[in-house]
Amino acid sequence: MDLRKLEQKLRQFAAERDWKQFHSPKNLSMALAVEAAELLEHFQWLTEAQSALLDSAERDKVATEIADIQIYLAMIADKLDIDIEAAVEAKLESNALKYPATRPPRQR
Amino acid sequence: MDLRKLEQKLRQFAAERDWKQFHSPKNLSMALAVEAAELLEHFQWLTEAQSALLDSAERDKVATEIADIQIYLAMIADKLDIDIEAAVEAKLESNALKYPATRPPRQR
Amino acid sequence: MDLRKLEQKLRQFAAERDWKQFHSPKNLSMALAVEAAELLEHFQWLTEAQSALLDSAERDKVATEIADIQIYLAMIADKLDIDIEAAVEAKLESNALKYPATRPPRQR
Amino acid sequence: MDLRKLEQKLRQFAAERDWKQFHSPKNLSMALAVEAAELLEHFQWLTEAQSALLDSAERDKVATEIADIQIYLAMIADKLDIDIEAAVEAKLESNALKYPATRPPRQR
Repeated sequence: MDLRKLEQKLRQFAAERDWKQFHSPKNLSMALAVEAAELLEHFQWLTEAQSALLDSAERDKVATEIADIQIYLAMIADKLDIDIEAAVEAKLESNALKYPATRPPRQR
Repeated sequence: MDLRKLEQKLRQFAAERDWKQFHSPKNLSMALAVEAAELLEHFQWLTEAQSALLDSAERDKVATEIADIQIYLAMIADKLDIDIEAAVEAKLESNALKYPATRPPRQR
Repeated sequence: MDLRKLEQKLRQFAAERDWKQFHSPKNLSMALAVEAAELLEHFQWLTEAQSALLDSAERDKVATEIADIQIYLAMIADKLDIDIEAAVEAKLESNALKYPATRPPRQR
Repeated sequence: MDLRKLEQKLRQFAAERDWKQFHSPKNLSMALAVEAAELLEHFQWLTEAQSALLDSAERDKVATEIADIQIYLAMIADKLDIDIEAAVEAKLESNALKYPATRPPRQR
């Protein structure tokens, strides 16, 4: 998925519905947190093992929550002119320094 | 960003650190919700207008939270074998039906 | 409200429904976060001013979310044998030291 | 704990610090969600069994998060003139109807 194209698409979608007025980063961060909690809700009474073995109907619902989170994340990044890809790359590099590998990478 | 490649990278990163045992969808959904709240925290005492006008230092911190959310989202999708791109496309189509445009798309 | 009595009541309620097995502090913290997000959801597209002026139907819904949060909070505290009242008193004292008053208390 | 007295105390505390301007229900619901996520964070990588067996230092930190949640909950209720005790009573009654007991209350 090209996240930049997604952001553009979402911007147009909001403009065509007069939603732009609601989409401050503050409001979007609330909407994102709400969606993250809806994802959480699917797993709250499951054991960790059960959470890895969803049936097909449940997996579809979880996929929809994941889509909602991805959509709001792209909208916030777009509003604040943040490049998600660059931010992820920077974070991965910083994680690699912070948490050195404890076992060698597998041969491939 | 190719989300599939990101998922593969994150899978390898976790394997090299013996973290796989912690990464049940249940636990990852908790970690995602925690990161979503850290994003929320940046905006909680700002007005909506202020939330759109972050200074450079604050914007960098927000970018890091956005990266954390993107990373955990990719990890959960990978664990549950959910295709984020397909889920987003399906959601956008369903949103377009649910919320018809109230104004015509702009000429381009 | 006597929070201790509430905790006792909730413990009995869970026991009579065989729910005890689900009520680990981990799971309860997830349920609490889900309820906190449901509260958030009521306010996400409102301005700050609007959020203070709920109509009666909306206020009733918000009251129910607040009750849910209070209930899960009491359940977690009970499970971990934490005294909410003592914890609140300690926190208020620490806040008073951390954030000195900037204006004198009003005469009453 | 008398929640009404706590609300009064918190109102005074905010007034003495000129914080009233920040304390819209919208903002307070964000602060509450942030604190709920901080509680979540303590449990995210623990098993359910481990989450019930915190050591003393960790239990103290969890108690502080619980206090923060209780404080923000009281503040929101106060702002919206919602009676937490009445809301909890109503919710418990509605839960008792919705989820009938599956085993008799224990003899006491």
